[in-house]
Amino acid sequence: MVWKFSDRALALKSSTIREILKIIEQPDMISFAGGLPSSNTFPVEEIKQATDLIMSSDEAFSALQYGPTEGIAPLRKWLAEYLSSRDNTTITPNQIMIVTGSQQALDLIGKALINKGSKVLVETPTYLGGLQSFTQYEPEYISVDSDEKGLLVESLTDEIASQASFMYVIPNFQNPTGRRLPLERRQQLAEKAKRTNLILVEDDPYGELDYQGHRLAGLYTMAPDNTIYLGSFSKILAPGLRLGYIVANEVFIDKLVQLKQSADLHTPSLTQRIAYHVIKDGFLDRHIPKIRELYKSRCQFMLSCLARYMPENVVWSQPEGGMFIWLDLPTHINATELLSEAIQHKVAFVPGETFFANAPKMNCLRLAFVTVPEEKIEAGIQILAQLFKKHANTLEESPVII
Amino acid sequence: MVWKFSDRALALKSSTIREILKIIEQPDMISFAGGLPSSNTFPVEEIKQATDLIMSSDEAFSALQYGPTEGIAPLRKWLAEYLSSRDNTTITPNQIMIVTGSQQALDLIGKALINKGSKVLVETPTYLGGLQSFTQYEPEYISVDSDEKGLLVESLTDEIASQASFMYVIPNFQNPTGRRLPLERRQQLAEKAKRTNLILVEDDPYGELDYQGHRLAGLYTMAPDNTIYLGSFSKILAPGLRLGYIVANEVFIDKLVQLKQSADLHTPSLTQRIAYHVIKDGFLDRHIPKIRELYKSRCQFMLSCLARYMPENVVWSQPEGGMFIWLDLPTHINATELLSEAIQHKVAFVPGETFFANAPKMNCLRLAFVTVPEEKIEAGIQILAQLFKKHANTLEESPVII
Repeated sequence: MVWKFSDRALALKSSTIREILKIIEQPDMISFAGGLPSSNTFPVEEIKQATDLIMSSDEAFSALQYGPTEGIAPLRKWLAEYLSSRDNTTITPNQIMIVTGSQQALDLIGKALINKGSKVLVETPTYLGGLQSFTQYEPEYISVDSDEKGLLVESLTDEIASQASFMYVIPNFQNPTGRRLPLERRQQLAEKAKRTNLILVEDDPYGELDYQGHRLAGLYTMAPDNTIYLGSFSKILAPGLRLGYIVANEVFIDKLVQLKQSADLHTPSLTQRIAYHVIKDGFLDRHIPKIRELYKSRCQFMLSCLARYMPENVVWSQPEGGMFIWLDLPTHINATELLSEAIQHKVAFVPGETFFANAPKMNCLRLAFVTVPEEKIEAGIQILAQLFKKHANTLEESPVII
Repeated sequence: MVWKFSDRALALKSSTIREILKIIEQPDMISFAGGLPSSNTFPVEEIKQATDLIMSSDEAFSALQYGPTEGIAPLRKWLAEYLSSRDNTTITPNQIMIVTGSQQALDLIGKALINKGSKVLVETPTYLGGLQSFTQYEPEYISVDSDEKGLLVESLTDEIASQASFMYVIPNFQNPTGRRLPLERRQQLAEKAKRTNLILVEDDPYGELDYQGHRLAGLYTMAPDNTIYLGSFSKILAPGLRLGYIVANEVFIDKLVQLKQSADLHTPSLTQRIAYHVIKDGFLDRHIPKIRELYKSRCQFMLSCLARYMPENVVWSQPEGGMFIWLDLPTHINATELLSEAIQHKVAFVPGETFFANAPKMNCLRLAFVTVPEEKIEAGIQILAQLFKKHANTLEESPVII
């Protein structure tokens, strides 16, 4: 049988990285690779009680029946109130659609906005899952220059901005770098978007994981007509529920509802109702600070290990929130090549090249710290430091070629 | 703000039918329109117990964490054994991928197989949700002639079959007609597929709802290399879980796994585990006969009402399973136009035209019977019968134009 795949399916490359990452799911591996939240933060008891409550009443029938494509009304209403209050703005339930994890939002947005060859602006580097979703709709990526604080807004010309289908940006504790876009750059970007009719896709799965609890204003509050905001319950409740949401102009939400209908009809009614019952009475206000505390302490511990063990020519980000630290190695070290060697030493990470839409940088990598206990963080960082030193030395023994 | 929608998004029409159907969700409406299973069949207590079990053990952490894109291993293994036994064939877990409802399977299959202008073969009429998913990838539909038993396989030339990306077919108790493809036509179709390298997409959400419990062999057992089989838990457990599955050649499953990863990463871990625990010890063998019994009795009741009240020039299908009856009206009656009048009389149905990929027939409609109590079935059929008579009479008073 010869499979007649579509061009977009034929263009899919099996990701070498993902293949390697599959291998590493061994108990003796120290993995800084996964982007998983810590299961210690999952509100197991609250979810159990919520499910019991739903399944013991007539709500069980709604939880098990087909439901509205845009999501169940009480959850959308709750989110509208929560976001309006949290971000000092005005969001209505009609501006909200529930999705099956915010990965689905990325897919639906690609479907709604990308024609073959459409220009999509992305950060340097950016989230791999975003690239994977958009790529299926065959855009042309334009990587916008970024520094350790995020996008360099002034490097984006009005001409390019006005030609783009949209710009994809993760302002808070970005995956993969952990960086947070400063307030003034947000304002610059929002102004540029309004001036050039640029759509911003603001992906914000990590925004609540701010170690200081000091939230910077979201782009969707600064340029509300231009911004599609993506939120997620994966990092503040549990990713296995696959629950996220989109906030946007009603015109756009209406279009997305049509697209979601043919994508999966609707997000499971049961998981939506569970989430609603868990969070409706202020649970997140009590729960999120505990996650922040745990992640902050793991992050600080990894930062202290990096400072203690890494050679001088390695630099890393100093996240103020989120789940990731980004390392820059000396330019001649190829992190992708180094991964196999690291895995032999029972340590894993994600090589940085996978996060670039164009012109991948090879000498960088992402470390995730939230699921790894402190003693393993220390052991893993020591092993990586030795590897980096070894490869740095290899170079010093070679003739210098400029 | 001017939204720069993709061509595929611009081509989406707001479905008039769906807009009307939204209006009809009133308690005093007799709706034969929805395609919902009866909530009386939902195994509420079993789902409650399964959830309790999961949430009271360490399995809770797996149920709430990210999981594999292809679905959880025990559910895939269970399905492989169940299908192998039920259909007297050999299916391995690697041939199975879990999806977020089989609507997602339709979307992923469109993504994997359709280029702009690809030829997609469909039945006449066919499932609206299939058309909605595939249409986003801009195929050219070829409607294959069908009669009251389903596809007329001999009307499909080898030339057209060999040019097509795939053929979409619902052999068991089709939505919308309720018809079941006879065994000899299945064999003909399987032979043709093998001869012409045609991919068959066999959508089977209703196959278990066979009133006699007499299953006809599936296409995927006859032409295993050519067939992508879609199964669903929506009609045998509960649609609110959004759980379906795809059975296909491993080469195809591997490609679909890549596509699903960017669509929603994976189907919720919690709902998969709930379904697994409910069904793993033979529950379906006890449960499905009860659903069949209920649906059979509702179907027979509606058929008896149709026989009692309908004028002679109305004909309808005689389903041996499933959830739908199909009505053909005299050719001059436009069922879409009639719907508004029916709604004024508090009865709803789905006009047939919406189920045609090409050249819609206007004088036909779909009736769903499983969620409507008997007294309402009788009242609703009486009202419809009066409407049809009125419109039939209108014609008789007009001059006959040939």
